[in-house]
Amino acid sequence: MIPDVRVLGIDPGSRTTGWGVVERVGGRLRAVASGVVRSRPDDPMPIRLRTIHEGLSAVVALHRPNEAAMEEIFSHRSAASALVLGQARGVALLAVASLPLHTYNASTIKKTVSGSGKAEKEQVARMVRTLLGLEGEAPADETDALAIALTHLVHHRSGAPAVVAPKARRMSARDQWTAIALKAGVKA
Amino acid sequence: MIPDVRVLGIDPGSRTTGWGVVERVGGRLRAVASGVVRSRPDDPMPIRLRTIHEGLSAVVALHRPNEAAMEEIFSHRSAASALVLGQARGVALLAVASLPLHTYNASTIKKTVSGSGKAEKEQVARMVRTLLGLEGEAPADETDALAIALTHLVHHRSGAPAVVAPKARRMSARDQWTAIALKAGVKA
Repeated sequence: MIPDVRVLGIDPGSRTTGWGVVERVGGRLRAVASGVVRSRPDDPMPIRLRTIHEGLSAVVALHRPNEAAMEEIFSHRSAASALVLGQARGVALLAVASLPLHTYNASTIKKTVSGSGKAEKEQVARMVRTLLGLEGEAPADETDALAIALTHLVHHRSGAPAVVAPKARRMSARDQWTAIALKAGVKA
Repeated sequence: MIPDVRVLGIDPGSRTTGWGVVERVGGRLRAVASGVVRSRPDDPMPIRLRTIHEGLSAVVALHRPNEAAMEEIFSHRSAASALVLGQARGVALLAVASLPLHTYNASTIKKTVSGSGKAEKEQVARMVRTLLGLEGEAPADETDALAIALTHLVHHRSGAPAVVAPKARRMSARDQWTAIALKAGVKA
């Protein structure tokens, strides 16, 4: 018996912070809610950070996730942009300090959702939309956050650094969904 | 007539965050309180960030500064360490989001306090201790935070990117204090 779990995935950024809540309940995966918190570029940075923190805190209060997931720290950016990103990441981490946090690197997230660790951003977004039955377009930060939450639901069960597809090949959304469902222990 | 002002200077770090409150009241500069917030290296990062945020929030609630000052973003670190520093800086900025924030670059802070933009860390610490009459040793993060607060009090009045000493020469603590007092519009 796999316990029900509700995960908040977060993709922080100083301008746009994506978030997505995905749950496994009654043997099914379901997108509960998702969106972006946008800070106003004209606001001073402390106010922008407060916007991000308050937005994510409201998501936690409203949707009551019991776990949080985020991309691991990466270091291919410049130090200056890393510091600005770090500020947003800091207040995002603060907003979920009451929850267990799990982090995954970018290629694991891509591979879990799309079958390839080198998938294009657009491919990840398309797979997330299809897998979770999202209607219409969604900002990339939002689908990225949902991809992180999905990744955690897959890895949470297996306990190992599982990947959905053994080979880095393109899969149909249906095949991918079946693979994710299998790993996450839910009905496809 | 220069209004009374109480400044909180912050030197954020993921392990140790220095803070110092300095006020100008009744024509005098005075260190109100200072210290460091230490996070526990064994704690998960969200908890460490919460420790920093709660510590600084308590300082704001207790000492009621009306302005905040911090070092400007700098970029000579690696991207990975900049991201970790950014996280601490983010929650520090959040803790002072209700206050006007002023930032100064490192060489301005050093020059304001010690007379030289290239002063050694130890020299800055010694000058701060002497200028504010601190007894005994203090962690470098604490004296750095006080140096930032002092810098703001000097620049706040003049409105210009003032430096205390026109030439980058060593000054005695007494001379430096006189120069700071002159710039900050207080009695030496």
